Amino acid sequence: MLTSTPDLKTLAQQTRSAARRLAALSGEARNQAVGAIALALEAAAPEILAANAADCAAALEEGLAKPLYGRLKLDETKLRGVIAGVRDVARLADPVGQVQLHRELDTGLVLKRITCPLGVLGVIFESRPDALVQIASLAIKSGNGVILKGGREAVRSCEALTKAIHQGLSSVDLDPAVVRLLTTREETVALLGLDQEVDLIIPRGSNAFVRFVQENTRIPVLGHADGICHLYVDRAADVAQAVAIALDAKTNYPSACNAIETLLVHEAIAPKFLPAMVPVFQSAGVELRGDDRTQALVGAAIEPATEADWATEYGDLVLAIRVVDSLEAAIAHINTYGSRHTEAIATQDDAAAATFISQVDAAGVFHNCSTRFADGFRYGFGAEVGISTQKMPPRGPVGLEGLVTYKYQLLGNGHIVNTYSGEHARPFTHRDLA
Amino acid sequence: MLTSTPDLKTLAQQTRSAARRLAALSGEARNQAVGAIALALEAAAPEILAANAADCAAALEEGLAKPLYGRLKLDETKLRGVIAGVRDVARLADPVGQVQLHRELDTGLVLKRITCPLGVLGVIFESRPDALVQIASLAIKSGNGVILKGGREAVRSCEALTKAIHQGLSSVDLDPAVVRLLTTREETVALLGLDQEVDLIIPRGSNAFVRFVQENTRIPVLGHADGICHLYVDRAADVAQAVAIALDAKTNYPSACNAIETLLVHEAIAPKFLPAMVPVFQSAGVELRGDDRTQALVGAAIEPATEADWATEYGDLVLAIRVVDSLEAAIAHINTYGSRHTEAIATQDDAAAATFISQVDAAGVFHNCSTRFADGFRYGFGAEVGISTQKMPPRGPVGLEGLVTYKYQLLGNGHIVNTYSGEHARPFTHRDLA
Repeated sequence: MLTSTPDLKTLAQQTRSAARRLAALSGEARNQAVGAIALALEAAAPEILAANAADCAAALEEGLAKPLYGRLKLDETKLRGVIAGVRDVARLADPVGQVQLHRELDTGLVLKRITCPLGVLGVIFESRPDALVQIASLAIKSGNGVILKGGREAVRSCEALTKAIHQGLSSVDLDPAVVRLLTTREETVALLGLDQEVDLIIPRGSNAFVRFVQENTRIPVLGHADGICHLYVDRAADVAQAVAIALDAKTNYPSACNAIETLLVHEAIAPKFLPAMVPVFQSAGVELRGDDRTQALVGAAIEPATEADWATEYGDLVLAIRVVDSLEAAIAHINTYGSRHTEAIATQDDAAAATFISQVDAAGVFHNCSTRFADGFRYGFGAEVGISTQKMPPRGPVGLEGLVTYKYQLLGNGHIVNTYSGEHARPFTHRDLA
Repeated sequence: MLTSTPDLKTLAQQTRSAARRLAALSGEARNQAVGAIALALEAAAPEILAANAADCAAALEEGLAKPLYGRLKLDETKLRGVIAGVRDVARLADPVGQVQLHRELDTGLVLKRITCPLGVLGVIFESRPDALVQIASLAIKSGNGVILKGGREAVRSCEALTKAIHQGLSSVDLDPAVVRLLTTREETVALLGLDQEVDLIIPRGSNAFVRFVQENTRIPVLGHADGICHLYVDRAADVAQAVAIALDAKTNYPSACNAIETLLVHEAIAPKFLPAMVPVFQSAGVELRGDDRTQALVGAAIEPATEADWATEYGDLVLAIRVVDSLEAAIAHINTYGSRHTEAIATQDDAAAATFISQVDAAGVFHNCSTRFADGFRYGFGAEVGISTQKMPPRGPVGLEGLVTYKYQLLGNGHIVNTYSGEHARPFTHRDLA
């Protein structure tokens, strides 16, 4: 495998060259390319389904875990949905070429800040072959090259899909090198080292995997390892509303990163709220763990919660509950144990909500609604390329804007800085243009 | 020094707490704090000047290099300028609380994306004590805490300035812990390890120092190590204009990161351009190094340039010159050797300029003007917190927007995701609000 590193570097450089040519195309031409991918996938449907069937057969033989098998499986209906998704991407607004700033610095000296593609994306995902198609079409749409690495168990599906994508790109005279598939684990590690060739890594997988990626690359990573989200039920909460929000935030999709892991309850409302809440969770099959005060209020119904529970993302139908003295204690708990993803307060007290929203350090701060709304599609972004819990933008659910950066363009007519320096410096006009 | 790490962590946590309270203040209150800092600096001027005089005396004794001494020295006029700069910061637009997105997801469910402070900045700068005042006022303005580390030779000045800043903050009932001064090199290293307590590192120093910081922290770094900028004189350049731009780009401030290091000249214009250009550079005291074709055109006047020259940031009155076959060759040279900072083309051919602007990979791409315009003040940002050559935003000269991030705020009235899922899913309205 020692030889794979230089090869991959060369391949990545080819992808970068191809991406530069793609970036120079109009939005219309990029949309045509996305449309051509949809057509090619339709034409190759029998080969794709056969390849996926072979992957599935091998997975059954190897005893792949059921949820992974479900994600791997691609039938005709699902493939049709995937292809419809590609056509949806073509209909999204063009993220490239947006003028973010247009300013005259002086007569004839005009500054523009214009969005442009990042360059080359590295995307590493788990078994789902549909992720490959989605990310490749988002990359083409945004003028980027992409190096993809799918799960080992989906290798035949990924190869068939990539072959179809390459045919689609060739049919509109685009260099297929703009979309590249890797198939070995060694290549994944080598990919993380290509900080001159790859501009952004998007890992889609388990928390441990994302953390491994973050710790083993100097390339910027779009994503998040943990999703420890909270709902705080304030003393002024509407109990029925808070019960409904808590149930949704925990049970709507327990393995999602935006599901809650800990419920914080103000001591003044706990005697009323918890006896109403706990049976609802129990009917929904949620295993509860409570601190002393929670246990005192709802009795032997629930297990004790320890310090470790506050720092755990269960990703399952398990929830920790803690009674807190005050809004401030709730905020302190969240800022200590939260993963800066999405945090919610249930309260009818607008001042308490404002304090919570201002003081909680997270990409999303919600009032009287479920944390599960933290999602690019629900936010109306049309596509989600990832959710970031980093402090620097892009943060939270990230749409196509996460796949572009910007350039400053300055157009003059022989303008030099010396004119604007020293004693008789000419002043700038700094006039924003329409 | 083993004990300094936990201490620093505690101090940084206090700064974070103080910053959270600062972040909750109105823009008006933050401006008052900046104004109070200006007043306190005026009141403490004698102590500050005395401390600086002591630093300067020690520096003379230790034989500090002349340019460093010049940066260290703070006289009454310079201090008055620094204080005026603080008042300018108060007048800048508030970067906090800007609504970047305001969207109804459904009746009564409203999403806002609002700018908010990053949290705690770590700023490490060289001898200039004025940098401390500027960055502290920008931090307060933007609602951030800041941990500052100045040069060893400026320690008395930095302590006197910080004392005055603390007095200013106290005078408006703000916790002085929001601005923290470190004085030892060991603390700098420890600071780089505080990735839970510090949100952004801004290094201001030599290329080697910035690279050291980038390679030794997991905290995001705003800045750039290298500034290898180019001017490409196209075949269709106006010779007189290109000569003036090249002279300015090299000599206006040779040690600046946006000065050019290599001049690329199209072979078709080289026989006309180079004989006009070279004497102008020579009169300005610029040492020239040329490739074979340059030497053939201008003779023994200049030294030979080697591969190493293309990759060197001279930061001085030295310039490499290379004759290229084509626009494409110029772009390829820049994308190979450039540091993605600022790149310019001189041409009267708009199509060539458009190709250059589209294909060159840099934060700034300029047409018919000097690379020296790449600067936050010249761009009209009012303040510059750094220049970034990274691909991910913020990129290029960064104003106050580099010190803020954003939060998504979602306000509902008991909204749950279950309503919008499954067979009878309620559709989102996704209506942008004014």
